[in-house]
Amino acid sequence: MAYDYDTIIIGGGPGGLAAAYGLVGKQKVLVIENNLWGGTCPNFGCDPKKMLYGVVESKRQTQRYGQSGITGAVNIDWPALMSFKRGYTDKIPGGTHDGLASSGIATLFGSAEFVDAHTLRVNNKQVTGDAIIIATGATPAIPNVLGKAHFQTSTDFLSLPELPHEIGFVGAGYVAIELANIAVEAGAKVHVFQHNDKLLRGFPEADTAVLKETLAAKGIQFHWNTTVTGVSEAGSGVIVHTDDEDVALDTIFAAAGRPANIAGLNLDAAGISASAKGVEVNDHLQTAASNVYAIGDVIDKKQPKLTPVSGYEGRYVAASILGQQAAISYPPIPHTVFAGPELAQVGVTVATATAHPDDYDVRTSSVGSWYTYNRLQDKTARVTTIIDKANQQLVGAVVLAVNAEELINTFSGIISRHETAAEAKDWMPVYPSAESDLQYFY
Amino acid sequence: MAYDYDTIIIGGGPGGLAAAYGLVGKQKVLVIENNLWGGTCPNFGCDPKKMLYGVVESKRQTQRYGQSGITGAVNIDWPALMSFKRGYTDKIPGGTHDGLASSGIATLFGSAEFVDAHTLRVNNKQVTGDAIIIATGATPAIPNVLGKAHFQTSTDFLSLPELPHEIGFVGAGYVAIELANIAVEAGAKVHVFQHNDKLLRGFPEADTAVLKETLAAKGIQFHWNTTVTGVSEAGSGVIVHTDDEDVALDTIFAAAGRPANIAGLNLDAAGISASAKGVEVNDHLQTAASNVYAIGDVIDKKQPKLTPVSGYEGRYVAASILGQQAAISYPPIPHTVFAGPELAQVGVTVATATAHPDDYDVRTSSVGSWYTYNRLQDKTARVTTIIDKANQQLVGAVVLAVNAEELINTFSGIISRHETAAEAKDWMPVYPSAESDLQYFY
Repeated sequence: MAYDYDTIIIGGGPGGLAAAYGLVGKQKVLVIENNLWGGTCPNFGCDPKKMLYGVVESKRQTQRYGQSGITGAVNIDWPALMSFKRGYTDKIPGGTHDGLASSGIATLFGSAEFVDAHTLRVNNKQVTGDAIIIATGATPAIPNVLGKAHFQTSTDFLSLPELPHEIGFVGAGYVAIELANIAVEAGAKVHVFQHNDKLLRGFPEADTAVLKETLAAKGIQFHWNTTVTGVSEAGSGVIVHTDDEDVALDTIFAAAGRPANIAGLNLDAAGISASAKGVEVNDHLQTAASNVYAIGDVIDKKQPKLTPVSGYEGRYVAASILGQQAAISYPPIPHTVFAGPELAQVGVTVATATAHPDDYDVRTSSVGSWYTYNRLQDKTARVTTIIDKANQQLVGAVVLAVNAEELINTFSGIISRHETAAEAKDWMPVYPSAESDLQYFY
Repeated sequence: MAYDYDTIIIGGGPGGLAAAYGLVGKQKVLVIENNLWGGTCPNFGCDPKKMLYGVVESKRQTQRYGQSGITGAVNIDWPALMSFKRGYTDKIPGGTHDGLASSGIATLFGSAEFVDAHTLRVNNKQVTGDAIIIATGATPAIPNVLGKAHFQTSTDFLSLPELPHEIGFVGAGYVAIELANIAVEAGAKVHVFQHNDKLLRGFPEADTAVLKETLAAKGIQFHWNTTVTGVSEAGSGVIVHTDDEDVALDTIFAAAGRPANIAGLNLDAAGISASAKGVEVNDHLQTAASNVYAIGDVIDKKQPKLTPVSGYEGRYVAASILGQQAAISYPPIPHTVFAGPELAQVGVTVATATAHPDDYDVRTSSVGSWYTYNRLQDKTARVTTIIDKANQQLVGAVVLAVNAEELINTFSGIISRHETAAEAKDWMPVYPSAESDLQYFY
């Protein structure tokens, strides 16, 4: 039986693209996209987010130095910031599409739905593939409350032509916190509504408690243990109704959860099962239909839903389709929240380690007075290392600090290489630098 | 024969301290210092230098974002900057001395001179040691010209109570360039006098040419191929006489070369030989007197004279004295010039690699338009990798970029581990981060 394509990939984001580039040259490949080529990360996710973050952190760093040699103050020009962002994002869809086309990867713009495990319907036409990869990602959840049409999302935030005076975020996960930090640094009055009192669930509470204080000191007003029950229009703004009080804002963003994009795929027609968390896959990333794979944020998985994980899964599935037999095995996955400062972790968590004190040593250093962090006037900096007692190897780390990404990358490399402490420190870092402190952390 | 001490270390800087802490507990150790305990790096070298650098770079980063979302401007308050620096440096001598004392290491304040290979005279008293380690470092050279008493040095610069309006530096090596950058960023009018046209000799000219333009655009006035012939007083300032013209300045800093601190040691009495570049040592860091070692900036060596190298040598000599037999073998040594942005290199140099095209692949990427450097508006960023053709391993790298230290540390780790490209990239960095570009550099 002949199919139109060897492999069809539904979704032209980082996961789908990694799969497509892993297959092209060996297979006839089609990528289908129904929104912006390139997907969430470069268009309305990590890439533009970090561009904005870098600028507001630059302003914040001058404030950290307010008693240490900097005088005067800078401010954020939101329209200029958006223009800066668009200078990058505007080129993404066209550039992505051109890259696919020039690489010999077929493209199709439209929404796909399954007819059977080898057949998709797109724009009312059928297209068939020997293998199909679902890489449709996730989109912001909108709370199912009265007036929900008034919610904006992270996508809207990252394209706001003007920064409203007073805004709110529902949620206290990484999307809400990263955007709330950008907004408050840019001059908005910011509210965060969270149904419990957890900031960045999954990170150690000792660190998130410090970050709560830092963000509150910046002016973010946290409404803990507060459930948003509805939104209504009020003049040019909104009233956010909660189980506690009504809050008048210019606009409100839904930033709690990013459910998988599976509505409309008609997964049942192909016999593919999905949970509330996404498409169910085995350890080869195969769905219930063995020729259909799923990768990236659309999967029901325990790994963090991050761009490099999607790319890793895309490359893995491409290799699998080309004959590789092994089950997927994930490297240590660093997760950095660009919260101003950054909170990052990798490997074995503090929660796991403290629950198994016979197996792990957990060591936290408050490093704000150390040379590196005093130099940055990053007074709340903290570094936690987790050591496997059996072999004295680093297996996990948490960093709350300015530019934590640098140190967490170093820790990720050490953990991935399964190095002993002696091996991990057997090189000469630049002095002074974040890495020249490595010898003191564990 | 019994000596007063097992080992006497002349010099309480990073090298001497590393040796002392490597020996204490096993030996009776004395450290002699004739200036500030802690030595150059923490008192008037890399540590305070980078504190100042961080603050001026923070200001510069807001300027890089001048068209990208930052409005307004900050300035440098020099007295506040000095106060910030002193908050760190003031504690160094006392803290260092207390650390030695509480560790059981004897200390003596004074200048040492050799009486013989086992005997030193300090404060007119003799003290003997089985082994002696010379760790006296280096000090700024003062050009031997008419009016040389008018020169100030890097030590003076790092403690200037007020920043003069218009200043000059003799030299275009890393000390001159790092201080010139700090001064011009802090608001001074800055001149650099160099007898040839080389900026940062030892770094690739393709990179230093870019840096020349960047620093000139900041306002540094370079006087290339200009020899300073004298300095004379003029009111509250100086006139710098050159073979080209006379330049009126508020003050002039000598920043060309740091000769070894050997005057006054009376090396001849111990039979120790020295060149113009410092104490001569063998590959065990032994001087011509086999029980006398030398470490750090005082040595005549080809390795860069940097703090971590001194520390490495101190630890090596301590181990040697305790019985280790092997000759010293240096790891790849990264050298970062904090020039705004940073210019850093490690491993095999571009000069060596281009001279041996059959052995090495040299690849330079102008990365200013890449996501990471566009994000930072670091438009002149460049990354060069040098690959050993025989095994495809990374053996050298050069980075000219904001926070180049981060990437050069990553490259240093890869080179030190002798990893193949596949091994070096077999881990998951934070996305986006400087390391998430690693896959594209080679």
